Amino acid sequence: MSAEEERRLARVALTWLAEPGTRAVYHLVERHGPVATLDLLLDGGSPDGWLHTTVAARSAAGDARAVAAEALARADRLGARLVTPDDEEWPAQVASLAALRLPDVSRRVDGETAPPLCFWVRGSWPLGEALDRSVAVVGARAATGYGQHVATELGYGLAERDWTVVSGGAFGIDAAAHRGALTAGGLTVAVLACGLDRPYPMGNAALFDRIAETGLLVSEWPPGAEPLRPRFLIRNRVIAAGTRGTVVVEASARSGATQTARRAIHSNRVAMVVPGPVTSAMSVGAHEFLREHAKARLVTGVAHVLEEVGRIGADLAPLARGPQRATDALDDDAQSLLEALPRRGAMGVDRLSSRAGVDVRTALRKLSLLEELSMVVRRDDGYALAPPAKHTRAAAETSGRPVT
Amino acid sequence: MSAEEERRLARVALTWLAEPGTRAVYHLVERHGPVATLDLLLDGGSPDGWLHTTVAARSAAGDARAVAAEALARADRLGARLVTPDDEEWPAQVASLAALRLPDVSRRVDGETAPPLCFWVRGSWPLGEALDRSVAVVGARAATGYGQHVATELGYGLAERDWTVVSGGAFGIDAAAHRGALTAGGLTVAVLACGLDRPYPMGNAALFDRIAETGLLVSEWPPGAEPLRPRFLIRNRVIAAGTRGTVVVEASARSGATQTARRAIHSNRVAMVVPGPVTSAMSVGAHEFLREHAKARLVTGVAHVLEEVGRIGADLAPLARGPQRATDALDDDAQSLLEALPRRGAMGVDRLSSRAGVDVRTALRKLSLLEELSMVVRRDDGYALAPPAKHTRAAAETSGRPVT
Repeated sequence: MSAEEERRLARVALTWLAEPGTRAVYHLVERHGPVATLDLLLDGGSPDGWLHTTVAARSAAGDARAVAAEALARADRLGARLVTPDDEEWPAQVASLAALRLPDVSRRVDGETAPPLCFWVRGSWPLGEALDRSVAVVGARAATGYGQHVATELGYGLAERDWTVVSGGAFGIDAAAHRGALTAGGLTVAVLACGLDRPYPMGNAALFDRIAETGLLVSEWPPGAEPLRPRFLIRNRVIAAGTRGTVVVEASARSGATQTARRAIHSNRVAMVVPGPVTSAMSVGAHEFLREHAKARLVTGVAHVLEEVGRIGADLAPLARGPQRATDALDDDAQSLLEALPRRGAMGVDRLSSRAGVDVRTALRKLSLLEELSMVVRRDDGYALAPPAKHTRAAAETSGRPVT
Repeated sequence: MSAEEERRLARVALTWLAEPGTRAVYHLVERHGPVATLDLLLDGGSPDGWLHTTVAARSAAGDARAVAAEALARADRLGARLVTPDDEEWPAQVASLAALRLPDVSRRVDGETAPPLCFWVRGSWPLGEALDRSVAVVGARAATGYGQHVATELGYGLAERDWTVVSGGAFGIDAAAHRGALTAGGLTVAVLACGLDRPYPMGNAALFDRIAETGLLVSEWPPGAEPLRPRFLIRNRVIAAGTRGTVVVEASARSGATQTARRAIHSNRVAMVVPGPVTSAMSVGAHEFLREHAKARLVTGVAHVLEEVGRIGADLAPLARGPQRATDALDDDAQSLLEALPRRGAMGVDRLSSRAGVDVRTALRKLSLLEELSMVVRRDDGYALAPPAKHTRAAAETSGRPVT
């Protein structure tokens, strides 16, 4: 096993020994790296009693490294991959969770908001790229028709403008937001609180499959992990910090959706709330949040949301992209054609060639070449970009990095 | 004509010569009094050209003092009275309009927000007392069922807690708020933008009559005045400054209701907004207002409104009440019984006597006496306070002030 593989295995083992977000574990990993941290914890060297007890209890149930290896094998069979901070596609913005401190913390889970150690991902987009221009749309499971309508419109409108729609895959608002994005042919990411082999809720299984086809299913928990109650709260910090802003559409009093918005505000992301009829129980939490948080913004549609996240975007340095790509080796004409292709959907060769400034004959030749390289796919209605995993894979192959 | 009568006549004439709210006129009256100001303006001594032209144009149509005298006579036949700052019942809080400066003023009407010179009032409650604990509930004329429901509930709930519900008597939200207050047996005040003899809109005539019976119809304009468009905006400053706070229930984009709320904010009153479905055109202005004004408070019901105006109430010194009352001459037992009577509705003699700490026989004797004095009325279900006009009249008679 290479040193890198050992580090990856250690991160998985650590996430199994203590729930994601545990501050003490995160700080040990930052200081000593995942392998030394795992050894330390397994040797009973936990810095506090609570962590000591937790690690001991889990260890009694199995060997952490063996469990991690089994999880990696299961993920492989499932077509899921592990993503760690060592990977190009790691979403850098979740590091801001290291500074997240929620006020008035009474439950342990509200205090343990450290950055994730790793993600399990199903779907072909690189995770960091998918989350770069992203907005979370979250809300009540028992949503009303009004809420579902608004969430669908938001999901559709954001996706149409090339924003990734992130949500939690739950019934109601979450599902409506995902569906809106899918209908627009856009990118959507479901961040789950359980193993990717058993996405919860079961009733959304078909939706999860559609999301994995064109977007991403993401979880901090290894395959097999159950959707335990506190995990939804732990997961919410990732939805909040992984996106540029969180929109709450319908939330009853003390709902999980407002907990995500709370984490967004305290991570210096925009928390946005869609109001609703004051006669609706499903808007009580939304209105409460607007009344209690001066920084929360009332939004009524996509234009307002874009205004907010766009403003933030202007302040943020562009996120680092992966370095060498296979495309760097292409000639100018081929590169122009690749750039001329729409991010999603196909385009006819006539339009493509005029867009790229390349004559039609050259365009046809270069497009055949690109097809050979699996960078472009031919369709009835023209040419389209191949799913990005192909790029990543190609880049990985040339750089010698294993593709998990 | 007494000096006081001359001053009253001059105020009416001035309001006819230039629209209420005109700053130049208000400042002249503050410095020189109404009579000298009227003489000055009629002699062509207006301090600015615009006012000069306005006064000249009006004067060409009639003699200002004669018009004012006719207005007073008409009001008398109508059962309406003139109220000026010299009267006990003048609502002192409208003086704050002297300091009101709206930002980004483009229309003259937004700049002319000086305090009123006088009010015409129909109904028996003293105006100042009626407006002391008052909240404005305003909104769209083309209200939806949702908005009307919310406005009715607010009107009812506020009235039930002894708050006066102030609105503009328009169709839709205004009418619903008035009706809610009337249903609760509470006090409601309609501030109109035209003469009290032709309350606008005609379709609310029956409502206006009900309001005048138990509450008040109020206007700055003399009988006969038409409801011209700009007058609604001029009127709105009185709704804003005469109350402790303004609640907007439904407002389309750029509605008059949000103009009232804007005047409330800039008069240091609370501006409150009830959100609604973002899919409703009738909530667009409401949501815009919440987005644009950081000081605006989102409220979802009576409890929130009371929280806001109650807080302000705690900061405000209690408003000055009229001095000598007929009740000052009563003995302790009679005073205790009067105080024990509910502000509205009747109470049986047993409960009254125990509440007042007076034995039943004494209570019966004192209540008969109070009935003789027209301070109390006997009903099937016990005793009730007589309508307040009786008090005012009695007090006025002893102090020699004419009752208009």
